[in-house]
Amino acid sequence: MSFPNRFVVAPSGFKECLEADAVAAAITAGIWRVVPGAVVDQVPLVDGGEGSAKALAAATGGSLVPVRVTGPVGAPVDSHFALLGGPGPLTAVVEMAAAAGLRLVPTDLRDPGATTTRGVGELITAALDHGCERIIVGCGDSGTCDGGAGALQALGVRLLDASGDELGVGGAKLEKLTGIDPSEVDGRLHEVEVVLACNPHNVLTGPRGVARVFGPQKGATVEQVEALAWAMERWGAALLETFGVDLRTVAGAGASGGLGAGLAALGAKLLPRFEVVLAHADLDARLATADLVITAEGAIDAQTVRGKVPAEVARRAKCHGKPVIALAGTIGAGARTNYDIGIDAFTGILDAPVPLPEAMDRAAELITDATEQTLRLVLVGAALGASAA
Amino acid sequence: MSFPNRFVVAPSGFKECLEADAVAAAITAGIWRVVPGAVVDQVPLVDGGEGSAKALAAATGGSLVPVRVTGPVGAPVDSHFALLGGPGPLTAVVEMAAAAGLRLVPTDLRDPGATTTRGVGELITAALDHGCERIIVGCGDSGTCDGGAGALQALGVRLLDASGDELGVGGAKLEKLTGIDPSEVDGRLHEVEVVLACNPHNVLTGPRGVARVFGPQKGATVEQVEALAWAMERWGAALLETFGVDLRTVAGAGASGGLGAGLAALGAKLLPRFEVVLAHADLDARLATADLVITAEGAIDAQTVRGKVPAEVARRAKCHGKPVIALAGTIGAGARTNYDIGIDAFTGILDAPVPLPEAMDRAAELITDATEQTLRLVLVGAALGASAA
Repeated sequence: MSFPNRFVVAPSGFKECLEADAVAAAITAGIWRVVPGAVVDQVPLVDGGEGSAKALAAATGGSLVPVRVTGPVGAPVDSHFALLGGPGPLTAVVEMAAAAGLRLVPTDLRDPGATTTRGVGELITAALDHGCERIIVGCGDSGTCDGGAGALQALGVRLLDASGDELGVGGAKLEKLTGIDPSEVDGRLHEVEVVLACNPHNVLTGPRGVARVFGPQKGATVEQVEALAWAMERWGAALLETFGVDLRTVAGAGASGGLGAGLAALGAKLLPRFEVVLAHADLDARLATADLVITAEGAIDAQTVRGKVPAEVARRAKCHGKPVIALAGTIGAGARTNYDIGIDAFTGILDAPVPLPEAMDRAAELITDATEQTLRLVLVGAALGASAA
Repeated sequence: MSFPNRFVVAPSGFKECLEADAVAAAITAGIWRVVPGAVVDQVPLVDGGEGSAKALAAATGGSLVPVRVTGPVGAPVDSHFALLGGPGPLTAVVEMAAAAGLRLVPTDLRDPGATTTRGVGELITAALDHGCERIIVGCGDSGTCDGGAGALQALGVRLLDASGDELGVGGAKLEKLTGIDPSEVDGRLHEVEVVLACNPHNVLTGPRGVARVFGPQKGATVEQVEALAWAMERWGAALLETFGVDLRTVAGAGASGGLGAGLAALGAKLLPRFEVVLAHADLDARLATADLVITAEGAIDAQTVRGKVPAEVARRAKCHGKPVIALAGTIGAGARTNYDIGIDAFTGILDAPVPLPEAMDRAAELITDATEQTLRLVLVGAALGASAA
């Protein structure tokens, strides 16, 4: 009986439930129940969103720098940025979710037209103060839709209304924008490299623009979504007028409620988040050694193929001809499209009809049990394959 | 790439949700998504409980005979017995659940000390009236714990208290039993073969006796369970005194609230339910042709190994060296013991945290999707096995 003995376990975290390293550990425990001597290479992955700064600091032997900043609804929040370890220029990871994430917006204040990315600009300033030569801004899990306006204001950009007064807080105010004055922007930004790690599927304006795609899940009503979509159009036009670059439908400019557009106007590069994040994980070389790759995410559905962790892992694994299995807490609508992009098989982790809170409480145990069950199914196939070969 | 092409699909029904033939059809649909040309031999299985008469009539080309009988709480119920098709002696299947099943007991009347198997005796009488030469009594899913006393009374046996009066209805009354008068029992019972298809793990008395093991799930309180356990002791002793046979710890005598003991005292044979039921399914010969066997049940847990459908299928499949996969709606405590009895792998069918009623509504769809996911995992293994061989 032959059986896979070398595994790469490269999961995402399960949002608001288990971080990626805990998911990887739970999968590994399940593998060892079935293949006790298996070599398991754990590559917990982040996507730039919540938890990314901490995870990248841990992965590179770096550290976290605590900073108190303006939160998304104005009250201060205790935030942080990461200093990456290792050789090369001193690099900061500014996780936008740590200053303006949806989780920082109280449920009764979830109005993406009113929240601000000012804290993200303050974190960038803190990283500049720290002497960083390279700043990676991780996008994802944002609670804002201000086009990065708040961040730009924090960095010295003035946004003016028809009376020449400074615009108030929040994306909804951008409909009143009549002029941008960048003359007092922090000059150090021209001397460092700023990279935005963003989902390239996100654009600023139009029918798939950020207000329409993400506004509802951030708490916007139908009317607010349409008003915000118009404000983003206004913002894109103003950025073009002032900075000479049309960011309205650029890939990634819609990331984190349009933060991509605002920072790109100041010269930041927009890169696909996995190109940035995986550069620190050496994923390709590790996939090349695997017999079998296991990935995971809280949900697998039609969105997964649009740049989520399991899809990115599968795409890279297929370059090495490796089989990929994905585990998920929820298998949602359109999940079968994942079969087309390199995920050979996926399976849910639930063992009984249970409410979501109970499933989340038991997530690690469920992942371990599901991994065991999954590998036993693979084992059945391996025996059939070996006997027929 | 080699892959299994011949499947035997031998599931149980999912209780109060999907009958076995619908489960088999749902699994088959999932197989065909992954292996479009697969040869699928569907063997929906019953265990003697609810739906067995109908299923065996269908499997043999027989028919159902409607009969109105006394229900478990006294009110009449529209019941039936099956006439099996095919050669051999004219055979009836009397499904005890169709006359005294738990589902026929309204929730607010669930007291196993008060319900009766009288209707089972009436069905047997109807089968005798019909000229049947062989009567199979299917046990399982009962709502009674009267030791079969009601059935015996319907067949002419008199049960007497200290005053010489006929005992009232229900197992709890057996504590007042002082004498049994079998002189007027239906004489035709001596001329036919009566076979009870029962779970051999069920005994009448003692710490694993039927009152203690099944009383609570039939609605008995702790006090009622102890009173019923004592009544079953009394019943076992009285049957020994009258009929000269000690049935108290005989395998299967505890089946269906002790119905096994009562009918065995009149000469019925107690046989393991699958020996009886599977004789009509030709399962062994069909398993011998399979590349892969798929079974299923509503729940897989520590009870499964004690004579449930997946365990019986696995035991037989292993005689032919065939791999067995089981699907389940719920994977319960102790499920991993099933790995020891020939189930090579099992998996849950749920795709998200959902309440039980929703899972039951979507059961067929969930089973089909889970079968597809399962076979894709087997396919991953088959490729690995073939390449390593």
